[in-house]
Amino acid sequence: MLQGRSLIGYCEGEIGPHSFQGIAAATGQPLTQRFYCASADEVDAAVRLAAQAAPIYAAQSGALHGTFLRAIATRLDDSIDALLAVVPQETGLPEARVRNELARTTGQLRLFAKVTERGDWVDARIASADPARIPPRPDLRSMLQAIGPVAVFGASNFPLAFSVAGGDTASALAAGCPVVVKAHPAHPATSELVGQAIVDAARALDMPEGVFSLLFDDGISIGQRLVRHPGIAAVGFTGSQRAGRALMDLAAARPVPIPVYAEMGSVNPVVVLPHALHARAEAIADALAASVSLGNGQFCTCPGLVLAIDGEDYVRLRDRLVQQLALKPAQPMLTPAIAGAFRDGVATQASREGVEWLLADHSEGGTIAPVALETNGANLLCRPALAHEVFGPATLLVHCADRTELLAVVAALEGQLTATLQAEVDELADWPELPALLARKAGRLLFGGMPTGVEVGHATVHGGPYPACSDSRTTSVGSAAITRFARPVCYQDWPDAQLPPALQAANPLQLWRLVDGEQQC
Amino acid sequence: MLQGRSLIGYCEGEIGPHSFQGIAAATGQPLTQRFYCASADEVDAAVRLAAQAAPIYAAQSGALHGTFLRAIATRLDDSIDALLAVVPQETGLPEARVRNELARTTGQLRLFAKVTERGDWVDARIASADPARIPPRPDLRSMLQAIGPVAVFGASNFPLAFSVAGGDTASALAAGCPVVVKAHPAHPATSELVGQAIVDAARALDMPEGVFSLLFDDGISIGQRLVRHPGIAAVGFTGSQRAGRALMDLAAARPVPIPVYAEMGSVNPVVVLPHALHARAEAIADALAASVSLGNGQFCTCPGLVLAIDGEDYVRLRDRLVQQLALKPAQPMLTPAIAGAFRDGVATQASREGVEWLLADHSEGGTIAPVALETNGANLLCRPALAHEVFGPATLLVHCADRTELLAVVAALEGQLTATLQAEVDELADWPELPALLARKAGRLLFGGMPTGVEVGHATVHGGPYPACSDSRTTSVGSAAITRFARPVCYQDWPDAQLPPALQAANPLQLWRLVDGEQQC
Repeated sequence: MLQGRSLIGYCEGEIGPHSFQGIAAATGQPLTQRFYCASADEVDAAVRLAAQAAPIYAAQSGALHGTFLRAIATRLDDSIDALLAVVPQETGLPEARVRNELARTTGQLRLFAKVTERGDWVDARIASADPARIPPRPDLRSMLQAIGPVAVFGASNFPLAFSVAGGDTASALAAGCPVVVKAHPAHPATSELVGQAIVDAARALDMPEGVFSLLFDDGISIGQRLVRHPGIAAVGFTGSQRAGRALMDLAAARPVPIPVYAEMGSVNPVVVLPHALHARAEAIADALAASVSLGNGQFCTCPGLVLAIDGEDYVRLRDRLVQQLALKPAQPMLTPAIAGAFRDGVATQASREGVEWLLADHSEGGTIAPVALETNGANLLCRPALAHEVFGPATLLVHCADRTELLAVVAALEGQLTATLQAEVDELADWPELPALLARKAGRLLFGGMPTGVEVGHATVHGGPYPACSDSRTTSVGSAAITRFARPVCYQDWPDAQLPPALQAANPLQLWRLVDGEQQC
Repeated sequence: MLQGRSLIGYCEGEIGPHSFQGIAAATGQPLTQRFYCASADEVDAAVRLAAQAAPIYAAQSGALHGTFLRAIATRLDDSIDALLAVVPQETGLPEARVRNELARTTGQLRLFAKVTERGDWVDARIASADPARIPPRPDLRSMLQAIGPVAVFGASNFPLAFSVAGGDTASALAAGCPVVVKAHPAHPATSELVGQAIVDAARALDMPEGVFSLLFDDGISIGQRLVRHPGIAAVGFTGSQRAGRALMDLAAARPVPIPVYAEMGSVNPVVVLPHALHARAEAIADALAASVSLGNGQFCTCPGLVLAIDGEDYVRLRDRLVQQLALKPAQPMLTPAIAGAFRDGVATQASREGVEWLLADHSEGGTIAPVALETNGANLLCRPALAHEVFGPATLLVHCADRTELLAVVAALEGQLTATLQAEVDELADWPELPALLARKAGRLLFGGMPTGVEVGHATVHGGPYPACSDSRTTSVGSAAITRFARPVCYQDWPDAQLPPALQAANPLQLWRLVDGEQQC
């Protein structure tokens, strides 16, 4: 059933000279299916088709875009058995997680369908003419329109929700942009199944060929060619800071620079204030242990840094956390490479001066178990690299000498996807500067709870200052992700019948619009 | 009265070793006042103060930000006599233009004040909790918050509206961001007067020191240091493509890349369709002549490219345009350097193969008169550099062989601030692909009219695809410019009393908010 070939519009790619195989996460052994690397010509063909499809697809109604997104969701839901046959094998993720992640993926497509069907996201604005003014004021109407073909790079750690039909693809398609996906080589069979579902939905709805393409490659040259291609207008990426920054640099150096939306993870600091520490040290430790080990730590919101003021309560938290983490089973990682990078990364952090092991990896062979390290606030201030992410189930406990040191450590942090405050409400008055300080550092601030678990909704921000995200003005999760792939276009004195429906006088789409500064519907 | 010193927060800069003088636009002679170049230490001091002011200023209410913007506007209006004594001298712009531009500048500040006072721009969103769901859904609330200190580079051609207190400064201050302006060396006295008005307003309202600083330099090192400074979070710029791209590259290469909003001008194509050409060749020519020569062509929206299908009607347009342009007086340019660049640029374009002079510069000495060149569509397709902007009163007429060639020329254009369609409504059906094609090329589409004249309103888009603008997702004019300097922050399960007022349950600011997907107020 699998072909191992790229999907170039409605055609299958060539069986070329270069190929690779997926790896069984549990054993590290190659799987039988071969996947054929796309050629440079195939990149060009996919982008050419996308560019041809772009104006046709962009001109379609939001209702039709919604139908397309729903059709993709339906086909993915229908593919559950096929997905269960390949996703766990390629990723080591258990069946329950695959089911949950598929539901998240199709739920996201349907939420975005609702948004495109409703249409308000285009931010229609009308500034009425005033012919009596000197000089006469023209009629101005603006709305968001699709930016053009988008290149999407899937993540290894969410083979469905942040991959071929994940948030970047869904938001680009919702905005009216064709998508060319570079499949992550860690889950090529999963990518082919999902890609085929999108192609089937596109064909069934007579979408213009090129609205979607999928490229296989286990190297970096095809992805680089894609980002450099003059037909590509924006890039979506989820992965490491190193790879994300490389794409940012590539895009910025183009003759025509383009936006890159790279979500690159972070250590997601959890700040435990004294009253909460005293009242709930064990409960917080239990929640931390669960969050650090969830999905074996392979979430970009894994809490990798815990800050508290030293003392007896801190010791309670630490001891309980170590005890709880030690109970978590060793599990396979998504890929042998990720497992190796985790072991190396933890070893590097542990080797730095002033860092102690609290819990070493007690796993053997191909699996990884949670790890905990400890240092103090002064040392973290000297060695900011200690606050760099090690992707996987690791956390660094930082005991600070006092309030001042804790605030200094927070102030020195780089950009984060999330920051969590564990505090009693009554002690917030003692820390008046802390909430605003955390807000400067992160895209999402939690009061209580743990950062793992990212809702797909209208108020979600999954982003944050660099290096958590390439563009702190955006989110890669939730309906606000759609506007990343659009730009405003203003029509001056344009004949009403020739305007896009969103801007016509009669408001045929019944949108909320900003009319002379007032919200109207 | 003028000191010639940078304004570093509430202090005056040093009288350092390097200085420069403004140039009288009319004579090319240096003016007497010396302006002292900021030192590297002064850049650092200005940014340090801005960073210290940032959380304090950002935490202030939108009402107070509005008061600040209005106070600046009042002081600028009160400075009209002082401004009239220096702006025409430094820029060659006549008194009426200075009065108009000041009104535009203070009107913009007051419009933005209205927006911050109203507060809806923060795009408040609420996604309610659902404790019954498995897993429980948290309460999520997001809003836009200030991005941090902004570096602003003023334009030479709008010494008030796009300079020290221009659109970039006004929108950054409205968003809650401190501003450090690098004054344009073509109008330093104007810059000092305007900067002093801002400082006076800030002092009068007890704004935190550093909310505004102004740096003088006639070289590029101070601006580069500013853009590279880790305390700067975003850059606003209006000027040439060369300088704008240099700032983009500098910002992209930082350890922490930051957004650059560079508005870099364009040739603003005017496409004249056959029926309109037949019906109104002379009227269109007259409007073109007025638009090309307005402000002696020194507008980023000057129509530098006119496209039509060859024939008798085209000849009518051409002959009338040449006749009308020849009647326009020669005038001084903003600076001798701009005049020189114009003469060189026109000579380069005229020297290219297949280009004919229609109207050579008939001016003498320090002044410049309008210029017109002509080529055909096939030649423009071969030599895309012919469609590059020559800043000043020049336009290139392009006669195309037929409909196909005209569409090909439009399709080959690079990004534009504006595109103008001169057409009769009845002929639009013959050109079904043209409006969408123009929309892909420009930020603002005009039906009839001329591109010069940019309204400051809620629906304005003054931006467009690169190289017209560094970031096609934004506008540098109008109230939508404010969001460029903000990023979304999401609060999860945050105690209501600790939330920013915009997100509190009682909606104390009475904002329009997206509550569970519905607009509510």
